Amino acid sequence: MNSNIHTFIGCDAAFDESEIVIFGAPYDSTTSYRPGARFGPPAIRNESFGIETYSPYADKDILDYKIFDAGDIELPFGAPEPALDMIEDLAAEVISSKKLPVMVGGEHLVTLGAVRAAAKVYDGLHVIQFDAHADLRDDYLGASLSHATVMRRCGDIIGYGNIHQFGIRSGDREEFRFAEKNTDMHKFSLDDINGVKERIGGAPVYLTIDLDVLDPAYFPGTGTPEAGGVDFCALISALDAVCSLNVIGADMTELAPVYDLSGASTALACKLMRELLLRLVK
Amino acid sequence: MNSNIHTFIGCDAAFDESEIVIFGAPYDSTTSYRPGARFGPPAIRNESFGIETYSPYADKDILDYKIFDAGDIELPFGAPEPALDMIEDLAAEVISSKKLPVMVGGEHLVTLGAVRAAAKVYDGLHVIQFDAHADLRDDYLGASLSHATVMRRCGDIIGYGNIHQFGIRSGDREEFRFAEKNTDMHKFSLDDINGVKERIGGAPVYLTIDLDVLDPAYFPGTGTPEAGGVDFCALISALDAVCSLNVIGADMTELAPVYDLSGASTALACKLMRELLLRLVK
Amino acid sequence: MNSNIHTFIGCDAAFDESEIVIFGAPYDSTTSYRPGARFGPPAIRNESFGIETYSPYADKDILDYKIFDAGDIELPFGAPEPALDMIEDLAAEVISSKKLPVMVGGEHLVTLGAVRAAAKVYDGLHVIQFDAHADLRDDYLGASLSHATVMRRCGDIIGYGNIHQFGIRSGDREEFRFAEKNTDMHKFSLDDINGVKERIGGAPVYLTIDLDVLDPAYFPGTGTPEAGGVDFCALISALDAVCSLNVIGADMTELAPVYDLSGASTALACKLMRELLLRLVK
Amino acid sequence: MNSNIHTFIGCDAAFDESEIVIFGAPYDSTTSYRPGARFGPPAIRNESFGIETYSPYADKDILDYKIFDAGDIELPFGAPEPALDMIEDLAAEVISSKKLPVMVGGEHLVTLGAVRAAAKVYDGLHVIQFDAHADLRDDYLGASLSHATVMRRCGDIIGYGNIHQFGIRSGDREEFRFAEKNTDMHKFSLDDINGVKERIGGAPVYLTIDLDVLDPAYFPGTGTPEAGGVDFCALISALDAVCSLNVIGADMTELAPVYDLSGASTALACKLMRELLLRLVK
Amino acid sequence: MNSNIHTFIGCDAAFDESEIVIFGAPYDSTTSYRPGARFGPPAIRNESFGIETYSPYADKDILDYKIFDAGDIELPFGAPEPALDMIEDLAAEVISSKKLPVMVGGEHLVTLGAVRAAAKVYDGLHVIQFDAHADLRDDYLGASLSHATVMRRCGDIIGYGNIHQFGIRSGDREEFRFAEKNTDMHKFSLDDINGVKERIGGAPVYLTIDLDVLDPAYFPGTGTPEAGGVDFCALISALDAVCSLNVIGADMTELAPVYDLSGASTALACKLMRELLLRLVK
Amino acid sequence: MNSNIHTFIGCDAAFDESEIVIFGAPYDSTTSYRPGARFGPPAIRNESFGIETYSPYADKDILDYKIFDAGDIELPFGAPEPALDMIEDLAAEVISSKKLPVMVGGEHLVTLGAVRAAAKVYDGLHVIQFDAHADLRDDYLGASLSHATVMRRCGDIIGYGNIHQFGIRSGDREEFRFAEKNTDMHKFSLDDINGVKERIGGAPVYLTIDLDVLDPAYFPGTGTPEAGGVDFCALISALDAVCSLNVIGADMTELAPVYDLSGASTALACKLMRELLLRLVK
Repeated sequence: MNSNIHTFIGCDAAFDESEIVIFGAPYDSTTSYRPGARFGPPAIRNESFGIETYSPYADKDILDYKIFDAGDIELPFGAPEPALDMIEDLAAEVISSKKLPVMVGGEHLVTLGAVRAAAKVYDGLHVIQFDAHADLRDDYLGASLSHATVMRRCGDIIGYGNIHQFGIRSGDREEFRFAEKNTDMHKFSLDDINGVKERIGGAPVYLTIDLDVLDPAYFPGTGTPEAGGVDFCALISALDAVCSLNVIGADMTELAPVYDLSGASTALACKLMRELLLRLVK
Repeated sequence: MNSNIHTFIGCDAAFDESEIVIFGAPYDSTTSYRPGARFGPPAIRNESFGIETYSPYADKDILDYKIFDAGDIELPFGAPEPALDMIEDLAAEVISSKKLPVMVGGEHLVTLGAVRAAAKVYDGLHVIQFDAHADLRDDYLGASLSHATVMRRCGDIIGYGNIHQFGIRSGDREEFRFAEKNTDMHKFSLDDINGVKERIGGAPVYLTIDLDVLDPAYFPGTGTPEAGGVDFCALISALDAVCSLNVIGADMTELAPVYDLSGASTALACKLMRELLLRLVK
Repeated sequence: MNSNIHTFIGCDAAFDESEIVIFGAPYDSTTSYRPGARFGPPAIRNESFGIETYSPYADKDILDYKIFDAGDIELPFGAPEPALDMIEDLAAEVISSKKLPVMVGGEHLVTLGAVRAAAKVYDGLHVIQFDAHADLRDDYLGASLSHATVMRRCGDIIGYGNIHQFGIRSGDREEFRFAEKNTDMHKFSLDDINGVKERIGGAPVYLTIDLDVLDPAYFPGTGTPEAGGVDFCALISALDAVCSLNVIGADMTELAPVYDLSGASTALACKLMRELLLRLVK
Repeated sequence: MNSNIHTFIGCDAAFDESEIVIFGAPYDSTTSYRPGARFGPPAIRNESFGIETYSPYADKDILDYKIFDAGDIELPFGAPEPALDMIEDLAAEVISSKKLPVMVGGEHLVTLGAVRAAAKVYDGLHVIQFDAHADLRDDYLGASLSHATVMRRCGDIIGYGNIHQFGIRSGDREEFRFAEKNTDMHKFSLDDINGVKERIGGAPVYLTIDLDVLDPAYFPGTGTPEAGGVDFCALISALDAVCSLNVIGADMTELAPVYDLSGASTALACKLMRELLLRLVK
Repeated sequence: MNSNIHTFIGCDAAFDESEIVIFGAPYDSTTSYRPGARFGPPAIRNESFGIETYSPYADKDILDYKIFDAGDIELPFGAPEPALDMIEDLAAEVISSKKLPVMVGGEHLVTLGAVRAAAKVYDGLHVIQFDAHADLRDDYLGASLSHATVMRRCGDIIGYGNIHQFGIRSGDREEFRFAEKNTDMHKFSLDDINGVKERIGGAPVYLTIDLDVLDPAYFPGTGTPEAGGVDFCALISALDAVCSLNVIGADMTELAPVYDLSGASTALACKLMRELLLRLVK
Repeated sequence: MNSNIHTFIGCDAAFDESEIVIFGAPYDSTTSYRPGARFGPPAIRNESFGIETYSPYADKDILDYKIFDAGDIELPFGAPEPALDMIEDLAAEVISSKKLPVMVGGEHLVTLGAVRAAAKVYDGLHVIQFDAHADLRDDYLGASLSHATVMRRCGDIIGYGNIHQFGIRSGDREEFRFAEKNTDMHKFSLDDINGVKERIGGAPVYLTIDLDVLDPAYFPGTGTPEAGGVDFCALISALDAVCSLNVIGADMTELAPVYDLSGASTALACKLMRELLLRLVK
């Protein structure tokens, strides 16, 4: 009998032959309101058998591509530095093997680990952020590493002007003032996404999707639901735009399955993962 | 004291005087992912007292029409043939009495029983399907009778060209290839519905609504939620279009109440049932 | 050590210095379908710490204004008269102190207490109602004071022509007939809101928001979810229009938190409260 | 086709031939904490098809007896007097037909209606109460008719000494002081039940079971769960003892299904109803 | 990077070196009331990381033993014969390799597949059943293969006298009559378990645990909760008694995780699995 | 109008006049499995109005005593040291004012802050722990401060022999080996509690109740439910025994309300808090 391999649906290639590597980063210790994003990666993997491998949007099938699912990193809870180091190490290994890392959070802070790894390899890196929250605080409750500071920390590395923010509809006044002066922020919707394409050109892009960019009607399964978000079709359209750029890594974060007992949020995340993968493969 | 009659709100006519006959088909044994549609019919009946009998959309009131609620068929679980035979028999009895059958599922396979009955009486029958899923597999996990094959089986009877599919956004590649060549498939939305009216003309039409055609934001209470669906108002508009045709029977399927603890999905289904009935009465 | 003051986020001014006074009216005894709106006020207060005090919509911050949270009135259950008297008394005290009352229900009947207080002070009062339900019955199950009669009772006081209803999509036939002849009813959406501004001019306006005007996709946490409602952005836009008028009091009612286990409905109500307050301050 | 009769499982006799009459009293307007007991009667009826008609405890089968299910009384919400009158009328009709009334609440106050009817016919009536709460307040929040005063009101009619209370573990100090002097109260458990048999002898007994006498482990589906209660087997044993007396009517109250999403509370109530009926039949 | 092996906690031996083989049988198509047991096996595997590998009850640690987790059989839905054949084949392969099969259901019917395999190898096989339900019907809703007939079918193979039933508290009258004459039934509790040891002696024993033998207080996560069951400690004690016999295979069935949102039922099942494994290892 | 003071029911004394000070410690960042204990303190405070202030167990009423509710400490998330310091500071302030601190967690690690404060003032301090888990690891996932190490850390301060553990039924093998040699551990139940009284005599005692000592049947609302626990009455009895000693502080931890949607766990915790307070007052 064979062993019991457990992957996101259809992502059962070996590491060496794969062009994309999926991994989970189940960390949520800096979550200040409702925790639970640590359970996002296993939920997406378990429920992925409920969706098809074929996408009628992209007219492609996951079974036709080589994707490796590396499972979840075993991250410690509490202080974030060790977790970020482990994420950075894994992302670096994927990137150095000329593969695309696609990470599933966990809280949004996990993005920092992957961006650190990417910024060391790719000069002039841009980050495109789909999110309800600005995440631009300089510190939060005294901590410089937090879900609420993650984009500020990314900007510390790649330059604030290379942070492109879409769908933002929550933050304190200082964050919005900071964004006006420093980052490329587009409030409330993803509509301006095509405008950014020209600006970025062929430069390397890391895409980070905080799933709470979606309206809670479509995605209630998250720790901090923010009314006034985008719908699934708008997100797929924006994905088309971003993936026509030179994307070198991506993530989706902040699925907290316990808050959506219907399972619809997890199902949406699985489908979004499929669409993301099928837009990143060559 | 009187006996304790229990019907969908306002549908308390006697069989003989009625123009429409409602019945439940609480079967979900071929459901491959999350079962529970068997509880759809009692949920709709129980919760219907929470809606009004008057529709401001149609400016009509159920109390002004004669509708009989026959309750639920007592269907066996397991193999589908006996259940389909019982559904066909009841639908045939309704049709032979010159009444319109309106069935509440149950999983989508129950539609096959009603379509068999209708096809024996009505030549040139068309089926209009609102659904997230193509349901066009030739077999599924080795079974030819399944929620995933039901439209293929209907097409076997009435001809694939008479199958008009709307809102479809999930299936395997073969189903979409099959649809391109054989059925009248309209992906993702109900927008093309008026285009089909001319094509069908005065021919008899059976309408089957798999409720997962709705976006899970509007209808999380279903076994296989598929992001990217339509909203309630679009569905009501499409209903207007279909019901201007020669509809000889209809169903709504795949409400699984346990997955929506808010009750909003069941309430929507009750309201949709009211709107459907008020568009089918003469 | 200080005592343990508990208010809606940022609303910690003293009564005397405040320009707005928030209070809860946790009454739901006439609810005929699913009760639970009595738990709306504490839910909004408890969960308000999950939102920001700054609004990027209004570019204002609650911390910059003086708002007093008076807590919840201790209302008796059962017959509504004593509860309505207590609400009227508190609202009258707020109004006589030249402050704006903002009430959180409870079922929609609580509005009557506040309107009674306002009508005694403000001549030519108008009421703008955002609601799924007409609430225009003359009596309901034999009672003249009910969530289903509350707008009829308000009209008895201020004249039916001064009742402006938006988003209405449920009621019995008589209510819609009554509205055609007597009130200013706009069915299904809030789109006509600007049309009413000219008609009202500088007259005093009381705004009552039954949260079920929102589609259950956005707001499942309510006793009687009605498909076909408006979304959050439409509601915020309409709020902009109304708050450009001479609003002298407002309420939001019918949050029943137990029906939305995701917490998204309560979070939306908190955010809407923030937006309402920031549009009412001077 | 036959009409759609809906009864507690196996209770489909006609009124005239029956020895027991079941009816629901879906009223909960004086509930001061968490409402929802109004949905107890339909829940018990709907879910009763999930249990067997045969009891291995009693070695009897419901199908061998004649029981009529009269459905639910359509009670108004708000002030309790009209509801109590309607309950009293129905109970009186059952009693005058020489049948046993078995009522399903609703909040505990509904018991008063049935006790009023019984006390008018049966001299020297005793009431045996299984309950977590003393329900002996003279008034509650200013109201003399309330779930918290119901046993005081019953005692006003039949004499406090004829009130036998078991399992009581909650109340204010005055209630316990009152009970010491006036009623026959047995705190915390049902263990003393046999002691009361001698005292009552052949006198007529009305049994009222507030289901919160059960520990919340066994019965979480109630508005005011009180830790420290009895288990199901203790309740069945106590039922044996009581039903060896001259029981002339009975009820079970305070099932609020929404608080137990597992359905176990409703299933227990269904089974308890079966055991109660099979101990009351002759 | 290694592949992503997914097993019950600590059960990561290779097949050849193992003494016990775990596998899942996720089938529930004949469930007549509330389905969902199909999700039992993945739930137990996913949540097993929440328990310790060491048992203070047995003073043993899973890490010290060789156990192989074969994952779940991919069973078709609908008619049961193909599923039972696949279960029998896998169980036979395990048994022929001189290992103990430990199966996780799925509904209780899956036991028949394993018993068929065991009975072909072991003469004089006994089955010990812990269950709330007799499962002794000869047919159920016309089907001879059903969760309600499974013990009758097992008895057809090994002789009814070799069926030892404990904890039984539900069934129709015929089942209890049949048991009196034919099987070794012990109603309501597991207390008589030691009495059966002498009778069985060294004969081979298959143990089947329908988890609904537990009281719903301890195990609400099952399709048909039956009040009046045993508690966890009683079950562990009975396990001690049974596992002192010559147990050649075992299963636990009827965990339906969706009905216990607290996760306590799944956690109990994981712990019970650990205790079972640690009593079966040598 | 008065400000909106929010306390545990009846605990509205001023700090100076009080003999007991309640405070919340809403921290759960080291929780390794299911987080959510951070919401324990507000849940207990909010739901306390659902219980009586009078206890029939103790025949005392909270209203007769002076207790101050200091609200929740605003603790940072992430690394535990700052949170523990803040807890220690507050506990020290309470103790130095000759009052008893009663803390509500949060995860069990918060106990360490209070024990540090108590150990600095009270020589020969004993800790009595009611818990399902040993919490005796020396480090957990590399961290020395964790819910899984808290009792080891307390023992580092007061001596392992002064740690009295009851109800323990989960841990790794090393913890149980360590306990055998070093602490006073009583597995599985609270039955031996009276035996410890003689040993402790008049020495100061800190009582820590991890609520998961209760069986999940009684208390499912916790992150790591462990079958096989004690019931509520056993816990109350043990409380009687402990509170006859010289208790100088106490806590209850690990209520995670989101996992028990029935509210029964929170209600139990409120009642236990009342019983604890009424046994600690003089």
